Amino acid sequence: MTTGSFVRKVFSATHPFASPVLCQRCHIHQQVLAMASANRVLTLDNLNSNVVKMEYAVRGPLVIRALAIEKELSEGAKKSFSSVIRANIGDAHAMGQKPISFIRQVLACVSDPSLINDANYPSDVKQRAKLLLSGCGGHSVGSYSHSNGIEIIRKHVAEYITRRDGGIPSYPQQILLSGGASEAIRNVLKLFIDHDNTKRKTGVMIPIPQYPLYSATVVEFALGLVGYYLDESNNWSLNISELERAYKESLKEYDTRVLCVINPGNPTGQVLTKENVEQIIKFAYKNKLFLLADEVYQDNIYGEGLKFYSFKSVMKSMGKPFSELELCSFHSCSKGYMGECGLRGGYAELINIDPDVFVHLEKMTSAKLCSTVLGQCAMDCVVKPPALGEPSYDRWLKEKTTTLNSLKSRADAVCKAYDSIDGITCNSVQGAMYAFPRIHIPQKAVDKAKSMNQEADFFYAMQLLESSGICVVPGSGFGQKPGTYHFRTTILPQEDMMSDMLERFRKFHNKFMLEYS
Amino acid sequence: MTTGSFVRKVFSATHPFASPVLCQRCHIHQQVLAMASANRVLTLDNLNSNVVKMEYAVRGPLVIRALAIEKELSEGAKKSFSSVIRANIGDAHAMGQKPISFIRQVLACVSDPSLINDANYPSDVKQRAKLLLSGCGGHSVGSYSHSNGIEIIRKHVAEYITRRDGGIPSYPQQILLSGGASEAIRNVLKLFIDHDNTKRKTGVMIPIPQYPLYSATVVEFALGLVGYYLDESNNWSLNISELERAYKESLKEYDTRVLCVINPGNPTGQVLTKENVEQIIKFAYKNKLFLLADEVYQDNIYGEGLKFYSFKSVMKSMGKPFSELELCSFHSCSKGYMGECGLRGGYAELINIDPDVFVHLEKMTSAKLCSTVLGQCAMDCVVKPPALGEPSYDRWLKEKTTTLNSLKSRADAVCKAYDSIDGITCNSVQGAMYAFPRIHIPQKAVDKAKSMNQEADFFYAMQLLESSGICVVPGSGFGQKPGTYHFRTTILPQEDMMSDMLERFRKFHNKFMLEYS
Repeated sequence: MTTGSFVRKVFSATHPFASPVLCQRCHIHQQVLAMASANRVLTLDNLNSNVVKMEYAVRGPLVIRALAIEKELSEGAKKSFSSVIRANIGDAHAMGQKPISFIRQVLACVSDPSLINDANYPSDVKQRAKLLLSGCGGHSVGSYSHSNGIEIIRKHVAEYITRRDGGIPSYPQQILLSGGASEAIRNVLKLFIDHDNTKRKTGVMIPIPQYPLYSATVVEFALGLVGYYLDESNNWSLNISELERAYKESLKEYDTRVLCVINPGNPTGQVLTKENVEQIIKFAYKNKLFLLADEVYQDNIYGEGLKFYSFKSVMKSMGKPFSELELCSFHSCSKGYMGECGLRGGYAELINIDPDVFVHLEKMTSAKLCSTVLGQCAMDCVVKPPALGEPSYDRWLKEKTTTLNSLKSRADAVCKAYDSIDGITCNSVQGAMYAFPRIHIPQKAVDKAKSMNQEADFFYAMQLLESSGICVVPGSGFGQKPGTYHFRTTILPQEDMMSDMLERFRKFHNKFMLEYS
Repeated sequence: MTTGSFVRKVFSATHPFASPVLCQRCHIHQQVLAMASANRVLTLDNLNSNVVKMEYAVRGPLVIRALAIEKELSEGAKKSFSSVIRANIGDAHAMGQKPISFIRQVLACVSDPSLINDANYPSDVKQRAKLLLSGCGGHSVGSYSHSNGIEIIRKHVAEYITRRDGGIPSYPQQILLSGGASEAIRNVLKLFIDHDNTKRKTGVMIPIPQYPLYSATVVEFALGLVGYYLDESNNWSLNISELERAYKESLKEYDTRVLCVINPGNPTGQVLTKENVEQIIKFAYKNKLFLLADEVYQDNIYGEGLKFYSFKSVMKSMGKPFSELELCSFHSCSKGYMGECGLRGGYAELINIDPDVFVHLEKMTSAKLCSTVLGQCAMDCVVKPPALGEPSYDRWLKEKTTTLNSLKSRADAVCKAYDSIDGITCNSVQGAMYAFPRIHIPQKAVDKAKSMNQEADFFYAMQLLESSGICVVPGSGFGQKPGTYHFRTTILPQEDMMSDMLERFRKFHNKFMLEYS
């Protein structure tokens, strides 16, 4: 898709200024673009070219069209479906998951401290609220926190990591709280921007398929995108030989210095074995790479016998020289069993970072003042949930277990359902919140898409949306081996909606295959 | 101060790793830096050079030293003062200002919706909470919002602006909610980054003195910093002749395309007259400049007979061609009478922006998903407070009025007190939250500072902190005419602390002047 067409597609769905016309090419209601005034200072011609180039498919044209369809439905439009199913984004609460009560009660109390005297709240909620407020300037969540985050919360994060990693110590001084993991990932990648155009760009290795935050950020920051393919035929595993290939090839163009790993995988759902993590660490050491471990799905492990191994714990247990690798690990309150995306809580643990670098990172984040204090408080409840014996423990455990069990059963159901459909193959969802099925798109449909200047999977996904109301993200938004086509769907629709979605999907897919076979 | 010394200063106060040593030059406890491993991938040598260059004085070395002193005091250190007074940052709640109840009650209800059934909350709080939740996916603030922000809140923002500007319409489609104003300002400035090194950099005009977010961002983004001086002898007014001078001079080096104005001023507190705003708009039109209006202090006007004139209202009332200028105006829930800094709520109104540009801006922000939903909800309460006749109205009005009256009386008290001291002159604080007194530093002290490789006002402010516990920001962090010295202090300490602060200050200053005269 060209930039111009992207702009028009998006513009059409968001700007209510001009008269709607139907674009025959992309089947989106378009509007005549207002002529840009000749006097405008900032236009497409002189706009930051990397901003123009970057793409972020999770909220791309399909999602914008989905919103428009929702609006049409709400205005009484007749369609063969009565609702849009938003399976495009890992947004658990939007799909009906209920929040963890402990988190919300603490947030209510720190927002309105008069509730600390409310008889209805358990004592551990009140104690936590008091503790958090004692860490805030003027005992108010309305104060700026330290740019790194509130000290007591960073201490709790470090305790959590130490517990999680079987006693391998973590230090509050190496924790930075952030507005979701995204902000922290972007802040760390920003350190690698090089303004000296005479030198080769810093290469950043990212998995293909990948979560598009990485590709978008790498493009925005003018870094070099070095993709390494995950092995679909082996349940999206990460092969060292492929890392070696991608690294070697990248050196022709880039000074490759960063390796990003997403574990459990997004959109691919694989969970790395301990041995695999060890191999990756050895690879990073051998090639002098700075490791970014996106571990936001660490609580979302469904596969039998699988376990989450943090990069830090494996690295530290390997001893020197591997234990001295530079590593940033990211976590978030948006995923796991809590799914608190809108609260924007997250953290980064920075290990073995050059102290000089750390100071400049702190300075840089300080110019943005601080991340949301309420998001920080939510993160606190995630890393320090009610303990056994405390009044909120039973309720918390029940809510957590119910959600994780339900996610596990939906993960099973989704991949089995897709894998059973002719023309679709789907690896098992070992972890995270997504399935990434492969669609074997008939050549006739590929040609048709080409004639419309679309990727075949974009064409497929748009047809799926228009005729069934299911919104997924085409594989091209995450990257895939040339000639293969996929889509990412979340496993988040609740059981009822899930059956409905799979039913709608089956109907669409069979019709599509018939039409283009 | 050299980069190395900055790093060591900051490192000393934040990293607890190594043994403390006292630096004779900057009087900060330092620690021996851990030797950077020869194997490190990321070091000061290859770190993003703009991140190294950027400075942000509001949270710079003085503040870090202030935190260290607080820790020393809490550990029983004996000093001539018993507390640190943090007058360095506009952080109202940290200085004892109480939150607006309506905002906090709404936040509590949307966090824990069971409170909507609580008999203790007024009905308008509950209605607002219900309305906001109806705008959230799955009726939960834990869902991602649209990247531009929740639709109903953007509608309320547009209604607020329309009301504020006497009926000049504002449209929700032109509103972007953001994590405080800072994030929105950075997002807009990012659009001007140019990756073509063969062309001249885009110049961004910012006032001197300025809020250092601007200089930090301009440096980080490799834009061209074009300073225009405010006129201290005329209560920091903005002279068009100085704008002309700065613009013309800048063209030798830059392609100057952006003009930032802060009104009311930070750190200078001036409030622009309508005529002045008109002149600035004419200047921007004549020279084809994109206008950024930082209007976060629009509620903080203290001077007799002064009024806030938004750039938008003036521009629109001037008619064509001025009404077609590209303008972004920023607001925040961190300042005003609410002072909710930690909640990170803010918005930008984007007027006359090229629709293509707008779409790419939306796409770029979508890669960061969304700003904090609770921050958005707080912004909602700011732009749509309880209306006359609603149950929360009286309490809200009383809280607002009390806070604003108290700020006004502190603004008066602070500038009068400073201006009455020998060796200090201080303009009146017409608005915002700061005084920016000029210190007439004796040559002997200037020489002493020079011998320590410090700016004279940094030296003065560090002495002030060490001997009185008052933390202010040296004028060099904001910019000032060469050879003049200032500091920024907030007017936020509550009345008691304010008397204490002025008393401590007077004592220090007289001693300092005696010592160096």
